[in-house]
Amino acid sequence: MSILVVGSVFMDSLETPFGSVERTVGGSATYFSIAASFFSPVQMVAAVGDDFPEEEREFLRRRGIDLRGLETRPGKTGFWRGRYHEDMNKRDTLELQLNVFGDFRPQLPDSYRDARYVFLANIDPELQGEVLDQLTAPGLVGCDTMNHWIANARPALERLLSRVDLLIINDEEARQLSGENNVVKAARRLLQMGPERVLIKRGEYGVIQFSPDSVFAVPAFPLEEVFDPTGAGDTFAGAFMGALARSRDRSERALREAIVYGSVVASFVVEDFGLARLKTLTWEQIERRYRQFVSLTDIDGA
Amino acid sequence: MSILVVGSVFMDSLETPFGSVERTVGGSATYFSIAASFFSPVQMVAAVGDDFPEEEREFLRRRGIDLRGLETRPGKTGFWRGRYHEDMNKRDTLELQLNVFGDFRPQLPDSYRDARYVFLANIDPELQGEVLDQLTAPGLVGCDTMNHWIANARPALERLLSRVDLLIINDEEARQLSGENNVVKAARRLLQMGPERVLIKRGEYGVIQFSPDSVFAVPAFPLEEVFDPTGAGDTFAGAFMGALARSRDRSERALREAIVYGSVVASFVVEDFGLARLKTLTWEQIERRYRQFVSLTDIDGA
Repeated sequence: MSILVVGSVFMDSLETPFGSVERTVGGSATYFSIAASFFSPVQMVAAVGDDFPEEEREFLRRRGIDLRGLETRPGKTGFWRGRYHEDMNKRDTLELQLNVFGDFRPQLPDSYRDARYVFLANIDPELQGEVLDQLTAPGLVGCDTMNHWIANARPALERLLSRVDLLIINDEEARQLSGENNVVKAARRLLQMGPERVLIKRGEYGVIQFSPDSVFAVPAFPLEEVFDPTGAGDTFAGAFMGALARSRDRSERALREAIVYGSVVASFVVEDFGLARLKTLTWEQIERRYRQFVSLTDIDGA
Repeated sequence: MSILVVGSVFMDSLETPFGSVERTVGGSATYFSIAASFFSPVQMVAAVGDDFPEEEREFLRRRGIDLRGLETRPGKTGFWRGRYHEDMNKRDTLELQLNVFGDFRPQLPDSYRDARYVFLANIDPELQGEVLDQLTAPGLVGCDTMNHWIANARPALERLLSRVDLLIINDEEARQLSGENNVVKAARRLLQMGPERVLIKRGEYGVIQFSPDSVFAVPAFPLEEVFDPTGAGDTFAGAFMGALARSRDRSERALREAIVYGSVVASFVVEDFGLARLKTLTWEQIERRYRQFVSLTDIDGA
């Protein structure tokens, strides 16, 4: 079962305590799509400028990502320059040029309209809603958002939340959106806004999933070297949604397995800059780390 | 199998965002002993003043805690006044009176000297070492420490670490003691200092255990209300060591179960001020939450 994702495709310049990289491809839709493509075909909806490198487009195609929804517009691809602190949970945006992404309005190719699995990565919640409007029969819809929209587009965001099944956000966003400091109270409040499940990403501490009648928590896979956290959250979401689409199952067990796949693939992306590690990642490496992850969390022994 | 613990017994005045309490019994040896007493008999080594309330002594006795090593000295019991921030991971010490604890030198009653399970709660590492010197055949020795000793008594602390089996500290202490920011690197460094296992307490994010060839991570039990985090770490250590002593087993599986018991009992203590919740806690409540904890972390379903 294929997955439709709408989000951003950017060029990123990144600096972490371990090094830096100039103008590498990034953006939420990119990380999501590549991670999801290990599990399912992907249909991407985004916009790039006419400067977008052909070899990157080719790489995405080779990963089974359908680019009919990737609009190429006259002008430059969006650009982001960020610098991470010594504590890599913190980062500063040094430069942001929206470029062609600035007036992006997602238009779905006809061939995308019957998508069943849908992920609305972090863009304006009005646009996220317009994507849903173009779908004929969405089955499982996940979405992300960020502090900017919570502060400045809350009505649109609340309308959107009443239409999605899964909300996948980080702990700071969960607190801001719910007005609750405590993670359990925050999740209960967010569930009341519409989604049937809320997944809260806690960076190096893992992920906690809430439904009205269950809670599931996993640590992050412990890594000795974290080079670049960029894209970890979108990679998590991509592998998570991909694993769900592959299983065509939304039982508690299927969701938990998908959360572990999400955590596993996200643990690879931070091992190198930008997309570099995802580009060399193999299915065998994912499966091996999945087994390590089970042993990491299994109370009944290693 | 009984457990010997050496540590502090204090009177605490506590203020959290949810309220305050004046002069309630606290201290590492107190929280540890009560938590451990759900699993095993406990032998306590500490010092109190002649003001220590008789009813509190009686409560400890009723919980199966041997107080022959609780020295009563002329003067006042140690006193600590602390205030937690809105973010309860942070707290300030407003007042600290060591009182009789100031020149405490642990003297073990003869009946304690053949203890097999031993926990050296956070006191001067010289004194922790002197306790070990008085034991004839310690089997499994755990210890805790704090930033003060890491900064001011490192040689004594390093000598101690070469003599213990289990180091149980929080993440900030792990970073300070190892000089490493990354938790995996920190743990590897700490393992080189002597202990066969290092357990790092991460507050609301749970616990991660490292041995030279395994890693085990559990989240904290998610709570809607955390009233007072005081004693959570010592409670964790008490239930953890108690569960180990009860099982008389130090296999990976026994350690993992003990970590879950530690996490479970610690999740109760923070539900009310000071020792209040531990005083009403029942074995049935522990077992029920243990099962909830397994379901919280079980990838194979709820």
